[in-house]
Amino acid sequence: MITSESKIQVRYSETDMMGIVYHANYLPWLEIGRTNLLKENGLSYSEMEQSGILLPVVEIHVNYRRPATYDDEISIKTMIQERSLARVRLDYELRKDEEVIATGHSVHAFMNRSGQPIKAPRRFLEMFNSAFE
Amino acid sequence: MITSESKIQVRYSETDMMGIVYHANYLPWLEIGRTNLLKENGLSYSEMEQSGILLPVVEIHVNYRRPATYDDEISIKTMIQERSLARVRLDYELRKDEEVIATGHSVHAFMNRSGQPIKAPRRFLEMFNSAFE
Amino acid sequence: MITSESKIQVRYSETDMMGIVYHANYLPWLEIGRTNLLKENGLSYSEMEQSGILLPVVEIHVNYRRPATYDDEISIKTMIQERSLARVRLDYELRKDEEVIATGHSVHAFMNRSGQPIKAPRRFLEMFNSAFE
Amino acid sequence: MITSESKIQVRYSETDMMGIVYHANYLPWLEIGRTNLLKENGLSYSEMEQSGILLPVVEIHVNYRRPATYDDEISIKTMIQERSLARVRLDYELRKDEEVIATGHSVHAFMNRSGQPIKAPRRFLEMFNSAFE
Repeated sequence: MITSESKIQVRYSETDMMGIVYHANYLPWLEIGRTNLLKENGLSYSEMEQSGILLPVVEIHVNYRRPATYDDEISIKTMIQERSLARVRLDYELRKDEEVIATGHSVHAFMNRSGQPIKAPRRFLEMFNSAFE
Repeated sequence: MITSESKIQVRYSETDMMGIVYHANYLPWLEIGRTNLLKENGLSYSEMEQSGILLPVVEIHVNYRRPATYDDEISIKTMIQERSLARVRLDYELRKDEEVIATGHSVHAFMNRSGQPIKAPRRFLEMFNSAFE
Repeated sequence: MITSESKIQVRYSETDMMGIVYHANYLPWLEIGRTNLLKENGLSYSEMEQSGILLPVVEIHVNYRRPATYDDEISIKTMIQERSLARVRLDYELRKDEEVIATGHSVHAFMNRSGQPIKAPRRFLEMFNSAFE
Repeated sequence: MITSESKIQVRYSETDMMGIVYHANYLPWLEIGRTNLLKENGLSYSEMEQSGILLPVVEIHVNYRRPATYDDEISIKTMIQERSLARVRLDYELRKDEEVIATGHSVHAFMNRSGQPIKAPRRFLEMFNSAFE
């Protein structure tokens, strides 16, 4: 399993009139989690996109257990649990003071600039090879 | 089944550097869908909140099939497929020019201002009664 | 003067924990105003971008007089008050039930894909010519 | 003068189809700047709100000089240049690799939960007193 830990601090702009973080605003946090997981494994998503390899989200799922509020520090655990060739699945666990407040996953497809599915780039396969062997 | 149709036009602010709508920005569209479904059935979510009944999202799921781009007109079909007492599940189908570009669902719990689960308000039950009998 | 009227309905996602619309969320509304002003004058911003002409925001200013709240209908009056060659200034007036709740302006520069300043495209000049002569 | 330095890393969600950060997404960064300035001076905005004192934005102004792009590290210099009783003005300077990419200011009014103007709370006046004497 490949794992990574990130931390974010809840922004005022992320709250809604219920007084808690608006549910859609968790999704950019998951993106921070996967950006960091890739970086820690030598992959820059920014460079990948520049080289024409895109990783659009094809599925997102979140279970919200406890609210997050303004100025909370949230830790994001991001995990890749199995190797894959065409699609990547990442799992997420969000915690506030050790308590899990949300879990979720995202699925991504490798695509080129024209929107056509492509194979996982070599660097991705290398990351999988070193992690799962 | 209770259904409702809404339309939105993609905003520039909803796109990202991939040139398409950022995945998190579909979630406010689903919210527009359920706001309208409730309104069409005589329920104002705005009034419900003022009377102390909240309906926070406890689960969200979206499958993205085709991208949405700036200025596209997207139609949102929102459905409640079965009655429920403690939680409400809504299903969504997003279309661009008749083609389904995304599907998803959300699950909501009834809560009071203190964050405690409560029963579905009478007006909700009446909506269910008239729809499912 | 070139003017245009648009209407939006406040989304739940646009509110913050103060119970009103978060100030940054007015800016996409101004963008809707200028998208419509251009459309009504035969200019599609979407097509302009595809043809390589960008109109990035170089200055934004908003005065907030009264709050906007969830589900409010807001009308946006967008105005171009004078012709210009290198930059375009738009003025905005936001109203809720006839009352002005915010005013503002934005300034935009014409740029190519490489980020270099360019002259206003012919279609823009034609719009100015027919409006200000 | 009271000053504070904050740093943020540009999120993918903050970009738009022009490939750069959408202009409205600078505003939450300014908010991070002022949250930190207050914290460093012993004031928690979060606590202030809980005690019934709100500081809504009444004016915002930003000049955009250079684009910010995904994964950039942006430093935010936040400044209060003069004491004030009824309203607070903050000035901002955003830098990427030492270069100023944007400047701006915000003006805030002290209000209670009913939306009525109130005087600056004691703790604010103390901060001004120790900073400007």
